[in-house]
Amino acid sequence: MPIKTLTWENDFIKMIDQTQLPKELVYLEIKDIPALAEAIKSLRVRGAPAIGIAAAFGVLLSAQLNKLSSSKIEFFSKLNESIEILRATRPTAVNLSWALDRMKRIADSNQDKNIPEIIRALQIEAMSIFEEDRKTNRKLAAFGAELILQNAKIITHCNTGALATADYGTALGCIFTAHSQGKNPQVWVDETRPLLQGARLNMWELENENIPATLICDNTAAFVMQRTKIDLCIVGADRIAANGDTANKIGTYNLAISAKYHGVPFYIAAPISTFDITLETGSAIPIEERSQEEVKTCIGFPIAPIQAQAYSPAFDVTPSSLITGIITDKGIIRPPYKESTLATLKKP
Amino acid sequence: MPIKTLTWENDFIKMIDQTQLPKELVYLEIKDIPALAEAIKSLRVRGAPAIGIAAAFGVLLSAQLNKLSSSKIEFFSKLNESIEILRATRPTAVNLSWALDRMKRIADSNQDKNIPEIIRALQIEAMSIFEEDRKTNRKLAAFGAELILQNAKIITHCNTGALATADYGTALGCIFTAHSQGKNPQVWVDETRPLLQGARLNMWELENENIPATLICDNTAAFVMQRTKIDLCIVGADRIAANGDTANKIGTYNLAISAKYHGVPFYIAAPISTFDITLETGSAIPIEERSQEEVKTCIGFPIAPIQAQAYSPAFDVTPSSLITGIITDKGIIRPPYKESTLATLKKP
Repeated sequence: MPIKTLTWENDFIKMIDQTQLPKELVYLEIKDIPALAEAIKSLRVRGAPAIGIAAAFGVLLSAQLNKLSSSKIEFFSKLNESIEILRATRPTAVNLSWALDRMKRIADSNQDKNIPEIIRALQIEAMSIFEEDRKTNRKLAAFGAELILQNAKIITHCNTGALATADYGTALGCIFTAHSQGKNPQVWVDETRPLLQGARLNMWELENENIPATLICDNTAAFVMQRTKIDLCIVGADRIAANGDTANKIGTYNLAISAKYHGVPFYIAAPISTFDITLETGSAIPIEERSQEEVKTCIGFPIAPIQAQAYSPAFDVTPSSLITGIITDKGIIRPPYKESTLATLKKP
Repeated sequence: MPIKTLTWENDFIKMIDQTQLPKELVYLEIKDIPALAEAIKSLRVRGAPAIGIAAAFGVLLSAQLNKLSSSKIEFFSKLNESIEILRATRPTAVNLSWALDRMKRIADSNQDKNIPEIIRALQIEAMSIFEEDRKTNRKLAAFGAELILQNAKIITHCNTGALATADYGTALGCIFTAHSQGKNPQVWVDETRPLLQGARLNMWELENENIPATLICDNTAAFVMQRTKIDLCIVGADRIAANGDTANKIGTYNLAISAKYHGVPFYIAAPISTFDITLETGSAIPIEERSQEEVKTCIGFPIAPIQAQAYSPAFDVTPSSLITGIITDKGIIRPPYKESTLATLKKP
């Protein structure tokens, strides 16, 4: 039974504060847009699919908060303002914009109705986004689990489990499914500096599911591949360009290069909503650069001289030439990515 | 003027406690062998050449502490016991055994003399090892600096500066020399998890020398190479096999693979004493596995669930096929390594 990362509670968003894990399981009650924007920026909620859902709930929350607007013009003005505040929180994950655009389309297409009706339509859409993600997770995980053979040895990077989604996870979801099928997967978990989503969140989720897992520093995956026969790497994605180039948590590219060098298959696991086919290649994906302090500290404690300069990209881009396949809820996409992606997107 | 990492103070060893840096510059006074063994095991002193010097000083210290032995048999018994205690502290860096063997040879070859004379001979040998390392550093750094062109962009891993040696450093020494030649090198510093020698020690040394440096997570070097034209990587070594395979701090192999993928020249900088030509290849180099706690914590604070399993190799082995050249105090060794190394070792 996956944990509930974020839920809609009629007039607020309830979410796990992931910055407190694994030390404490703390639930936040998010009751306005500034609080939600702060939660997304501070990575209290993170993971591309979860951010999308949080944003959808945010638009619904904004609509509810402004239900007594004196006019529909005022209502829409505030709604759009909220949407743009949320859109500006994080630039790389496309799921954020994708969910906001879906909510905005629903609001706009219902603009002739009265405010309670618009809110009702927004609520239906937000819950659809949430429910679709749950179903998407399961479908994707089932496809991914087919790639995982008995006693498979797997390396993963960053958190892509229940904490990153509505339900079950993407890359970690594939592993959960394989485990539930009795395949006994064994996982090496990149700690995922600077914010340690692997150490803090994956290790917690894998322990909860009783899946054997070994924590390693990110720089150790190559050595593990040299000395142990690793069967595959699976990671998530924040945005995938039309040619298959994939933005994901910083360190993914590094891992993909090592996998290529060792002949280890390297898979991306992401819902179809992670594709941004408006971008030809990954070079056009905006890469969020976060505060230097995230690199100059570790769980808040300084690790370097105070004056030190640091560089803190939150993501990197892995060229599709390093990617063996992309596991989606509509099946596994394989090279040539451009053609295969377009064909997959057309599937029902 | 490089800082003094460790010195012989007539009847004790004075050394910087590197575990306290960059927060505090604390000097330890090491007055017996258990304290020295603890300091080496706990990485209060670390870096292959510095460990060798510390061990040589340790043998001298042991001899002095036992100068009132009732017999030479007792004196030699205690001396050899100290040597074996020190030898067992860390398995990978060959400089440790190399320095201990040098000291033991001197003791053995002077066994017909009286104890004060043996101690005098050991003191001369220990100071030779120290002084040779100073000279070695400078020679090696001069050869390495020739590879660094104006405004060179360099990535390095783990600490290889004054803190790792008697004086000036190996990989970092090359950069210091290039800087002193007005070449304006710019350095990206891998933080070097788990013990953060890059973040804590390199950033401190580079700041002291006013060399522009940017701290990055180890998983970010590949992305830096993708987006910035990096001219070369330089790292140190703990043991080099006859075929050029090189054991160095965990993460070196990972960096070397990325360098190869991006066509960035990858250099090892190490004194000749780091070669162990009794080993044909790197697969025979013993790899120290340290406590899981080092990976499960960051500067002492837990980052993962308490029950988590972790894997903490202190070193990895980079195959010589990924190494562009090995910068030594006798010149730069290039492939084919076996032949070039033997020829270089024969040089005066």
